[in-house]
Amino acid sequence: MSNPASESAELDLSSPVTAAVLVIGDEILSGRTKDTNTGFIAEYLTALGVDLKEVRVVADEIDAIVSAVNALRSAYTYVFTTGGIGPTHDDITADAMAVAFGVDLPHDPRAVAILEARYEPGDLNEARLRMARIPEGADLIHNPVSGAPGFRIGNVHVMAGVPAVMHAMMDEIAPTLETGRKMLSRSVEAGVGEGWIGGELGALQKQHPAVSMGSYPYFDGEKFATQIVIRSRDEDALETAEQAVETMVASIRARIEMEKQT
Amino acid sequence: MSNPASESAELDLSSPVTAAVLVIGDEILSGRTKDTNTGFIAEYLTALGVDLKEVRVVADEIDAIVSAVNALRSAYTYVFTTGGIGPTHDDITADAMAVAFGVDLPHDPRAVAILEARYEPGDLNEARLRMARIPEGADLIHNPVSGAPGFRIGNVHVMAGVPAVMHAMMDEIAPTLETGRKMLSRSVEAGVGEGWIGGELGALQKQHPAVSMGSYPYFDGEKFATQIVIRSRDEDALETAEQAVETMVASIRARIEMEKQT
Repeated sequence: MSNPASESAELDLSSPVTAAVLVIGDEILSGRTKDTNTGFIAEYLTALGVDLKEVRVVADEIDAIVSAVNALRSAYTYVFTTGGIGPTHDDITADAMAVAFGVDLPHDPRAVAILEARYEPGDLNEARLRMARIPEGADLIHNPVSGAPGFRIGNVHVMAGVPAVMHAMMDEIAPTLETGRKMLSRSVEAGVGEGWIGGELGALQKQHPAVSMGSYPYFDGEKFATQIVIRSRDEDALETAEQAVETMVASIRARIEMEKQT
Repeated sequence: MSNPASESAELDLSSPVTAAVLVIGDEILSGRTKDTNTGFIAEYLTALGVDLKEVRVVADEIDAIVSAVNALRSAYTYVFTTGGIGPTHDDITADAMAVAFGVDLPHDPRAVAILEARYEPGDLNEARLRMARIPEGADLIHNPVSGAPGFRIGNVHVMAGVPAVMHAMMDEIAPTLETGRKMLSRSVEAGVGEGWIGGELGALQKQHPAVSMGSYPYFDGEKFATQIVIRSRDEDALETAEQAVETMVASIRARIEMEKQT
């Protein structure tokens, strides 16, 4: 298993481009709102060939946000944050980013212009103007849904928490990202619980180092079954491994059937 | 606002009992599986009066798990992990906990006995026996759904990732937890976007330090609306603040209506 070809294939498993998501919001931590943004961004990045490596959810507290974003931005290629950029007193993400990057947080003339064009004269009140406070040196992220922009500072992309707005912002951000070779995947339904396949699947994983074999058990209400997911950035390695897993599953199921009948 | 009564009420806002959730699993980070466990645990802990302060999702990698659990267990009263305790090669949560706590990971006789009672003779293979590997010094968490136990080591509760199993494990764990005074909450629908209420809501928050006022915008497909959520551990303070918010919302809506007509 240590010939040069399989070694280079093995290295190829992980994308050089990595990312973390930072969800900011008390409402997620209290359980009041169920986070769907993380799943959306995870699928989005996987499709782009960016490896999402970590997610954190923190409260609407400056210290918690600053400490999380500083840890994540130094560990990964990109950070994507959601939440806390609206017009109310509990929207403190911009404040936290300014602290994290050690910069000022002025009313940005570009953002003010966007809001002025959006609202009737007189409606651009102090609360709404909060949404034009952008850390110095940041680029704006266009918000085609509701106007108030997100921003990118360093490798951190600061997006809204409202899903429809965040989705649109991801579309704005995507073309600006470096991306890796796309991760490919195949699924094999084992039809039996993990306990039947664990030993042989582990051995098979060792024989196929250019792919990653994941075993995902689920309970269908009556019995356990298992999805085996095979992932690789190498199409040929994926194909070979998928066939090997299918052969293994068929042989295990035949053995279980035979045992039932004896 | 700094009389002794309101100060003690303000201190009362946060529970002395805090928690973090650590979700372990590549399938969440790839977007293939949408995590519902975090939302379930968040609601569960809120109902118990435990403050969930942070969530992390990490990959099936020993170093990532060890580093996350060590950071979280030193920062919060309790840690709850989900995922990675099944019978396959990618189930490495027990290994990671043994490393994090610096203890051995033997086959635990109590866990082996549970599995022996569960499976037909001959079916308790090497893969399934992996699920009896429990870090030294840990207590078992009963699994009424599928047998293989979780475990508690120090302040860390290690649970399955399959939701039905995790739910049952939470029910086992709940009576063993210290809990705080329960957080109470009321919602007021503002009926208008955040930008209309931000300024006055911020001022109202300052006048009611014994409650936390959160503003949660949403997009109903046509326009933005806002749920204002008021939270407190003090029933009287909650009641007073709710009335103040309702009065504020009514007055803002009346003003907007009047402006429309002129």
